[in-house]
Amino acid sequence: MTGQPLPGFRDFYPEEHRALRGIFAAWREASRRSGFAEYEGPELESLDLYTEKSGDEIVGQIYHFRDKGDREVALRPELTPTLARMVAARHRHYRKPIKWFSIPRLFRYERPQRGRQREHFQWNCDMVGEKSAAAEAELIGTLVLGLSLLGLGPSDVVVKVSDRGWWDRFLEGHGVKENQKAEVFKVLDKLEDATEDEWNKKLGSLAGPVRQALGAKDAHSSGLEEVRQGVAALGYAEWFEVDLRVVRGLAYYTGVVFEVHDRAGKFRAVAGGGRYDALLKKFGGEDLPAAGFGMGDAVLAELLAEKKLVPAEVPAPGIFVVAELAQRPLALQLVGSLRRAGQVVDYDPGHGKWAKQLELAEAKGARWALLAGREAAQGKLTVKELATRKQGEIGYEAGPGGAISLVPGVGEWPKVIAS
Amino acid sequence: MTGQPLPGFRDFYPEEHRALRGIFAAWREASRRSGFAEYEGPELESLDLYTEKSGDEIVGQIYHFRDKGDREVALRPELTPTLARMVAARHRHYRKPIKWFSIPRLFRYERPQRGRQREHFQWNCDMVGEKSAAAEAELIGTLVLGLSLLGLGPSDVVVKVSDRGWWDRFLEGHGVKENQKAEVFKVLDKLEDATEDEWNKKLGSLAGPVRQALGAKDAHSSGLEEVRQGVAALGYAEWFEVDLRVVRGLAYYTGVVFEVHDRAGKFRAVAGGGRYDALLKKFGGEDLPAAGFGMGDAVLAELLAEKKLVPAEVPAPGIFVVAELAQRPLALQLVGSLRRAGQVVDYDPGHGKWAKQLELAEAKGARWALLAGREAAQGKLTVKELATRKQGEIGYEAGPGGAISLVPGVGEWPKVIAS
Repeated sequence: MTGQPLPGFRDFYPEEHRALRGIFAAWREASRRSGFAEYEGPELESLDLYTEKSGDEIVGQIYHFRDKGDREVALRPELTPTLARMVAARHRHYRKPIKWFSIPRLFRYERPQRGRQREHFQWNCDMVGEKSAAAEAELIGTLVLGLSLLGLGPSDVVVKVSDRGWWDRFLEGHGVKENQKAEVFKVLDKLEDATEDEWNKKLGSLAGPVRQALGAKDAHSSGLEEVRQGVAALGYAEWFEVDLRVVRGLAYYTGVVFEVHDRAGKFRAVAGGGRYDALLKKFGGEDLPAAGFGMGDAVLAELLAEKKLVPAEVPAPGIFVVAELAQRPLALQLVGSLRRAGQVVDYDPGHGKWAKQLELAEAKGARWALLAGREAAQGKLTVKELATRKQGEIGYEAGPGGAISLVPGVGEWPKVIAS
Repeated sequence: MTGQPLPGFRDFYPEEHRALRGIFAAWREASRRSGFAEYEGPELESLDLYTEKSGDEIVGQIYHFRDKGDREVALRPELTPTLARMVAARHRHYRKPIKWFSIPRLFRYERPQRGRQREHFQWNCDMVGEKSAAAEAELIGTLVLGLSLLGLGPSDVVVKVSDRGWWDRFLEGHGVKENQKAEVFKVLDKLEDATEDEWNKKLGSLAGPVRQALGAKDAHSSGLEEVRQGVAALGYAEWFEVDLRVVRGLAYYTGVVFEVHDRAGKFRAVAGGGRYDALLKKFGGEDLPAAGFGMGDAVLAELLAEKKLVPAEVPAPGIFVVAELAQRPLALQLVGSLRRAGQVVDYDPGHGKWAKQLELAEAKGARWALLAGREAAQGKLTVKELATRKQGEIGYEAGPGGAISLVPGVGEWPKVIAS
């Protein structure tokens, strides 16, 4: 039996989980402030939910198998098809625009590498029922708020925005047929480091016009310009950049698309999204416009680590109860009562010697030690602030049902310890 | 394409997700107050992690398949084997006792029924490295705290506690061989509604002694008595009951075991756990004592619904910005600025007419409407409390970079709206 998880999967020990929770907290807070409501779907779905609607790349990487009921099932590689399924089934219950978010766990079978795991978490925000560019602006504003809550700024990351609709018109204008477009998008998606020769080879007669289009710095389409204005009005002009090279791999995008990248270009995309107006109808729902984004935890965590912004909300006990053997029952009463009153309280269940209990209090990072020694029989405890070694006396009273409360009035300690 | 999830799987629309988040919040808060640190493992593990260490019942219900790398993998049916694997790999880094909790998603292929889904969430708390009964008391105290944070009391639920160690000794004393014990435990586990004839048929000569043992109301073993005292000292005597019929199905339990049931006996067990001292060693780790429990979300949610205790933390926007068309840029600046200041703010992205925007504000359950009408050009906004229709005037100022702040000093409204 190996002690390791499967390749591409991660164990989150408490230290690592703390960082993950910090990321989730920022995602939830940005969603909440922006008026998105949380939802969640199943992690296992019918395989056919993905095979027709997603891109080839994703479908080739799906974990799928035949279950004991002979169904072809898949561990979800993305949440958008589930969202489309759920909205199609119940959208009449909801006032438009529907603004929903989720933090799903997703699965892809691909070669594990830096920032790419076989299992990861992803923040998803989607707006359904809003056709105007306000949807994209709202989504970009929300993801930027999330990044800024983690301490990132516009000098760290940039939202690169493009328009698949503009590309559609451009390619049609240059005689590219509908069934060839996906291939061109795939080439454009990988163009970053290509040489001039490779450009000519891959794009042929399109190389010149494409190069010219990419060189222009204006917004190219009215949709893109409206998104730019909306994002600027929300206060995020510095985070925004038009970059037509962004085309996104997924088959279902129809309009404005965007990616978040670190400014230095050291990492993969931190987030990506766009408009997918045709998807809901494909799922048998009404013809509802929609847009959304996904932001994974893995690349983001790497970027935060590089910027020394890993959230370190260390959960240490506020109070650690230390007791002589004779005071053990009192100690447990204190532990139970203080926890019920909302405090974070720990103690040594092995009930070691006095010094060992104090040592465990320090090892656990407790702020206060609450000491039940000989004078506990007279209703007195000692409170010690472990970092400063300052200490003072404190009283306690037994209430009904064995509940213990610390007594105010014996100096400032009860107030301090409750702070 | 069906709009439904696979059989046994659940969609959590925002209303349902709210209830789930309420349960998670109580689980996390009880864990935190009790000094447990959060961790998480992968959802896909090697199948052999379960085949040897868990009970037959679980193994028969595992979702398992061969992945593209030809590995036999399983969607985790429980978290304890992952915990054992993780602790075995790194336990030297951690001061004992290790107190960890998690809220994993788990999978079982079984016939879906009330309170039993193929996918569910489960609160897991475990203590590793503590051999005394203080571990079980601490675990029971923590789960009771979690239930009480959800509004449940000792008249709603009871923790039934038993001792597999006592049963081991009892069965050995009556000549039951080691390899027959599992079968007897299985019979005991299903004895609840059996008639006298069925008792005699299933237990044979053991029927009399077992009946006598079950009838006795004292604690039977010193371990059980210590747990009882610890739970009572923590303040939860009323929640505690010795019931030797509780034996738990899992193969790895070695000592005290417990289950949480609703008092009326209408539902399946809400939670279950116990001591599993031999498991860590089986995973190649040191010989560390351990105990833990799991509490699923499905039965708990049913019980909470019956007791009308479904947590309803409805996330509605605090402020809804309503604007005339000419004030649209100002409205977006307000939205962005107020969100950055921590407020929950929404608006109508479709920018409907004034009355339609107000109607959407009410439909979304917003507390305040912030109105940017004709007087906005003079630095004035109107604030309206939607429930009471009370309204007042408020000023605003543009700061650097387009940030807008509400101006205190124009009456009490800025203070009220920020509350």
